[in-house]
Amino acid sequence: MTNNTAYAELMEFQRQTEALAQVAGRLGWDQETVMPRGAAQQRSEEMGALEGVLHARRTDPRLADWLAAAEPADDKAAAQLRHIRRNHARTTKIPGALAQELARVTSIAQGIWAEARANDDVAAFLPTLAQVIALRRQEAECLAEGGDLYDALIDDYEPGATAESLGAMFDRMRPRLVALRSAVLGAEYQPKPLEGHFGQDAQMRMARDLATAFGYDWQRGRLDLAVHPFSSGSGSDARITTRVVETDPFNCFYSTIHEVGHACYELGIDPDYALTPLGQGVSMGVHESQSRIYENQLGRSRAFTGWMYGQMRERFGDFGIAGAEAFYGTVNRVQSGFIRTEADEVHYNLHVMMRFDLERALIRGDLVVEDLEAAWNDRFKADFGIAVPRPALGMLQDVHWSVGLFGYFPTYSLGNVYAGCLHRALRAAVPDLDAALAAGDTSAATGWLRENVQRHGGLYTPREVITRACGAEPGEGPLLDYLEAKFRGIYRL
Amino acid sequence: MTNNTAYAELMEFQRQTEALAQVAGRLGWDQETVMPRGAAQQRSEEMGALEGVLHARRTDPRLADWLAAAEPADDKAAAQLRHIRRNHARTTKIPGALAQELARVTSIAQGIWAEARANDDVAAFLPTLAQVIALRRQEAECLAEGGDLYDALIDDYEPGATAESLGAMFDRMRPRLVALRSAVLGAEYQPKPLEGHFGQDAQMRMARDLATAFGYDWQRGRLDLAVHPFSSGSGSDARITTRVVETDPFNCFYSTIHEVGHACYELGIDPDYALTPLGQGVSMGVHESQSRIYENQLGRSRAFTGWMYGQMRERFGDFGIAGAEAFYGTVNRVQSGFIRTEADEVHYNLHVMMRFDLERALIRGDLVVEDLEAAWNDRFKADFGIAVPRPALGMLQDVHWSVGLFGYFPTYSLGNVYAGCLHRALRAAVPDLDAALAAGDTSAATGWLRENVQRHGGLYTPREVITRACGAEPGEGPLLDYLEAKFRGIYRL
Repeated sequence: MTNNTAYAELMEFQRQTEALAQVAGRLGWDQETVMPRGAAQQRSEEMGALEGVLHARRTDPRLADWLAAAEPADDKAAAQLRHIRRNHARTTKIPGALAQELARVTSIAQGIWAEARANDDVAAFLPTLAQVIALRRQEAECLAEGGDLYDALIDDYEPGATAESLGAMFDRMRPRLVALRSAVLGAEYQPKPLEGHFGQDAQMRMARDLATAFGYDWQRGRLDLAVHPFSSGSGSDARITTRVVETDPFNCFYSTIHEVGHACYELGIDPDYALTPLGQGVSMGVHESQSRIYENQLGRSRAFTGWMYGQMRERFGDFGIAGAEAFYGTVNRVQSGFIRTEADEVHYNLHVMMRFDLERALIRGDLVVEDLEAAWNDRFKADFGIAVPRPALGMLQDVHWSVGLFGYFPTYSLGNVYAGCLHRALRAAVPDLDAALAAGDTSAATGWLRENVQRHGGLYTPREVITRACGAEPGEGPLLDYLEAKFRGIYRL
Repeated sequence: MTNNTAYAELMEFQRQTEALAQVAGRLGWDQETVMPRGAAQQRSEEMGALEGVLHARRTDPRLADWLAAAEPADDKAAAQLRHIRRNHARTTKIPGALAQELARVTSIAQGIWAEARANDDVAAFLPTLAQVIALRRQEAECLAEGGDLYDALIDDYEPGATAESLGAMFDRMRPRLVALRSAVLGAEYQPKPLEGHFGQDAQMRMARDLATAFGYDWQRGRLDLAVHPFSSGSGSDARITTRVVETDPFNCFYSTIHEVGHACYELGIDPDYALTPLGQGVSMGVHESQSRIYENQLGRSRAFTGWMYGQMRERFGDFGIAGAEAFYGTVNRVQSGFIRTEADEVHYNLHVMMRFDLERALIRGDLVVEDLEAAWNDRFKADFGIAVPRPALGMLQDVHWSVGLFGYFPTYSLGNVYAGCLHRALRAAVPDLDAALAAGDTSAATGWLRENVQRHGGLYTPREVITRACGAEPGEGPLLDYLEAKFRGIYRL
């Protein structure tokens, strides 16, 4: 076996694995959008069988031989090998029995969490949560090899990030965010909330037009309804979902734009990388940077909301907001609230910081699940000034912990920070962007992001891809500058 | 390994294979209904990877060991083993290289056929067709072990059927069908054709109500649009599709009822058989018997069309047919035509007989592809009295031969024959059926079919299941009696 043969055989094997992973993803899409309700149990068997096939491939003994023999011919091949090696090392460090037990417990745990949330019943969730944490700690011990357990988990979602660096970043962000929130909530001028009724069909038509405006390629995707919006798939099939609340069209519109950001990242990757390890977004943080810059820095900009205002007037008539400037305030209205996913740009990262501290304590063993509800509620009162009225609005609100996603939350803030950096660089590269956005034309922005971020897929590390795009190491400064300028403007401070 | 252990291990292995086969089926459904067009090439790689997994499982060397050791504990276990043994014998008789080549060539051939049909270009299709026939002949030689090649192919779709028995059946059917057609086409009274425009949304609403009327379980299925209607999936997820032609609502309505028949068969199987070899319809012929009895003997009956007439009047107003009796004639109007799938009940089997003779000659080597068009056109003129104007309406009309489905066509007629037998037995068991059908209530009929045919899945052989349901061996008599009585009545002969 020559080195070239080993590389070619490895990549062919990997390609089939990637193709099967796409099938598993599509099955997940089907389940959340079109699957008949009575098919749930059979589906879990189907998914289990497919996951079994994927697991067998990922632990195939030939991988180690190929990886030992393969020598990369160029930088791209080296990057492919880096990903395969990394995943292989991760898989081989975890005993099969532990991996199976984690899969089994987290798949049950999600249902238990959903029912506990529906009934506001923390006690019903705690034994399962304790079990999930114990298993994830075991897994982290296998991965960390003596290092920090929580770091080992973060590394799954954002290679290279550490709790220490994230904690330091959050410490720098907090005072400026808190000061901004305080100024904004105390401001004399307060934007008007949106009121009224906006029909489902009209919302969906506008959602489609917004996706088109952000360059979503309908030849390689589609938009459907789902309970929780998500995007799904890579290569030439990246689908998005949204939801409709007839009293809150922004929910539908900005969920759509957010998911378009994720999908455009996948669809923007160099087609040569399709069905290879380079053919997916490189990390959760970079992924979120695309969804957030589409949604916030572009979609909630004064210029673009000006165009949206005209669109909404055409479709919904007079909906009680007089003029594009007032509409810009309405879209960006800052408000206290309990739910992370509904938070405005000023509050959002404060929600994440709280989860980051709590989950780090859980994984380190400094906090036991029996004390979690009190810890959450105390911290929420301290950070947000309001008392959590019931656990569905508190510690039971997010699915993440039930499925073992410890270390995932901070990537949401990292995405916002990356988006801040990219936005600064984008504005410097495209000085007349606002004129285009005001006409509903995002192509200069989305083209710049495709060229500078999206097309690279997994070629560079997360920090590298942001640094190359921005010409500087990422940091929280640009995001905070942007937020202060934007919200001081809106609130006339 | 005890015999019990061998059986349990085999069934567990088989269950995973069945689950993966369901996934492959769902991927096919996705492709024909919701897949973005630009995803076609990636999809073929995804499907190829999954087919590779299935092929590896179906040729897994452990199967032979398990099959040698396993002893069935009861009749059901014996039936499970019979199916697995049969499939395993088939798979092991065909060299892997031949199976791969067949898969490769037929997947390309379908596209070449579609383009040839669009361009009425027989010459462009012939080399591929010759290749497909040569490969299927090779395959049949492996399977037949000295027996008849065409029989070996039929056996794939209708275990136990032979060209000789089918040929004899067709010989008995032909004179009575030809005489009936002649009488009907020469009758003084001719039903009025349907004219007018019937909107897509209203058609789809009525299609849903028709599916409900035939007992389709929406908790375990769904209805979507597709270019060629099909049903897909087993167990607790059996989906159907239909199409809409705004000048021909019967196309949508009867495609829907037909596919509901197929899906209800799958959904009616004993749930204990789900994800096992017994958990699917037992043959193409028995499957078609369910779709055809739903569509024709029930859906096109005087009683049920009486209810449908009221439904259509409510939804579409006066559409030019005066009264339920005239409507019954319109629904069942007999007309010369070139296309099998659009043929009425009197013509349908004559189309099949012609294909049966031609494809048997092709497989036996008595007819070469270069002579096929002339043979088709001559035969069509002789059998139907009209000249084929272009190959898209002649030998290029069906997809079957391009994908190698030789031996499949006769199962359509076998389905009609079985439906005739089942209908006679059903009428004897439920003497007041028409009163229920006239109120749009099919439950007595569908309940009888579920109890006597559907629930058994693969437990009995095709002939056994029909014989048990009817109390007599299947034969063409009941179908011909039914057709003569029905059409002589409609045409006032």
